[in-house]
Amino acid sequence: MRKSGRPLILITNDDGIKAGGLAALVEVAKPFGDVVVVVPNESYSAMSHAITVKHPLYVKEVKRKKGLILYKVNGTPADCIKLSINTLLNKSPDIILSGINHGSNSSVSIHYSGTMGAAREGAINSIPSIGFSLLSHRHDADFTFAKPYIKKILRHTITSGLPKGTFLNVNIPDGDNLKGVKICRQTKGKWVEELIEREDPHKRRYFWLTGYFRNFEPDATDTDEYALKKSYVSVVPCMIDTTDHQYLNHLKNIQDELQVQ
Amino acid sequence: MRKSGRPLILITNDDGIKAGGLAALVEVAKPFGDVVVVVPNESYSAMSHAITVKHPLYVKEVKRKKGLILYKVNGTPADCIKLSINTLLNKSPDIILSGINHGSNSSVSIHYSGTMGAAREGAINSIPSIGFSLLSHRHDADFTFAKPYIKKILRHTITSGLPKGTFLNVNIPDGDNLKGVKICRQTKGKWVEELIEREDPHKRRYFWLTGYFRNFEPDATDTDEYALKKSYVSVVPCMIDTTDHQYLNHLKNIQDELQVQ
Repeated sequence: MRKSGRPLILITNDDGIKAGGLAALVEVAKPFGDVVVVVPNESYSAMSHAITVKHPLYVKEVKRKKGLILYKVNGTPADCIKLSINTLLNKSPDIILSGINHGSNSSVSIHYSGTMGAAREGAINSIPSIGFSLLSHRHDADFTFAKPYIKKILRHTITSGLPKGTFLNVNIPDGDNLKGVKICRQTKGKWVEELIEREDPHKRRYFWLTGYFRNFEPDATDTDEYALKKSYVSVVPCMIDTTDHQYLNHLKNIQDELQVQ
Repeated sequence: MRKSGRPLILITNDDGIKAGGLAALVEVAKPFGDVVVVVPNESYSAMSHAITVKHPLYVKEVKRKKGLILYKVNGTPADCIKLSINTLLNKSPDIILSGINHGSNSSVSIHYSGTMGAAREGAINSIPSIGFSLLSHRHDADFTFAKPYIKKILRHTITSGLPKGTFLNVNIPDGDNLKGVKICRQTKGKWVEELIEREDPHKRRYFWLTGYFRNFEPDATDTDEYALKKSYVSVVPCMIDTTDHQYLNHLKNIQDELQVQ
């Protein structure tokens, strides 16, 4: 963390500039420093860590006032981070916040999430980064009860930083009966897809992804799914390094079997 | 692995149906079982683990002959896996192969890669999955020298399986002097973006992502970047679980500090 001056806080999301979750996050962040918001110009949900390589990116300044600048970009959340760090900002941000997403990003949803893609991109660039999500898909979701928790986690991270290569996945139950914060691991599970199959007006068959989450370990009590079910805010520290070090050791032992003669 | 019958091998990629890397992978896989190819109908490079939720997916059968069926989909590589498992295939595939990508997916590129997004999606569905990439972006890249290694790794994985939640990221140097296979960990590094900044015909400023890879640990000898530099095929076992268990323990110790009064 910088020792002097106001911290520079970079904020992005995957729901676009009009999302209520963005406004709530900016409101919490502003007292902590100068805020620059760089967001996609439309919803980029489920865009994961995608980046735009096939077409150019345009940046539009939407607002500029003391302590707050807003830009929108025709790109993904991860693009917004890359553009900010490399071009829009004249110094490296002290912290990157992504969200507040409208909808959960717990368990394996971290892999599909544009919100978490942006947080991971921040971590790749060695900047402490946090993704926040509220368990409500409603356009007019109420972030009132989430804000004190976000403030607490933000203050702690601005003060203490995060290990290089680690970022936080914070999910917040919807409603007014939050029980506290639980530090968790990522739940093992998957989305069971129920593809809606229909015929379009041109008699062509189409599929539309939908589905529900299946928890592979419903009895575990140290997971983010469990914490959320019990009305706790879940905080999962996540890594850029995805190496399976345990299986790595096994494979090293049989490396000879994989050689081509 | 299934005990009887020919294995069912599902193949996808992110370069589309005409890619030379796809043809090479199908050629290697065919002797091992029945092959179903389900690929995006255009290039989906750098699409990461994105899925399509905003518009419907259309599937077109392109080819059907003994032991080989090809479909194309207006979706991402991860969509192709979801559609295949849930709708197109009448039984679960025994193994999922993604690639051969035209271009490296080593180090942090695993996070941007559509090829690796598909492999991860396979692992989320508890199916042994491997992403293959050749270190050449050429449209007419030569996969001749890669094939024996892919065959070896494929045979081993069909026989031995993979731990639940683990998938393989295999990168193969371009050229005829491959030294062998090295089991590695994911290199710490990042893409340093050099955004090309220009003016379009309408006098609007635009940015185009480009850049080069910076290895944060150039002296390490157990990384995929090192193996590739030394002309070895790199095999990195990767996990779906991204939890930083070490930092998790630290955070648990200070959990009380994060509570809202």
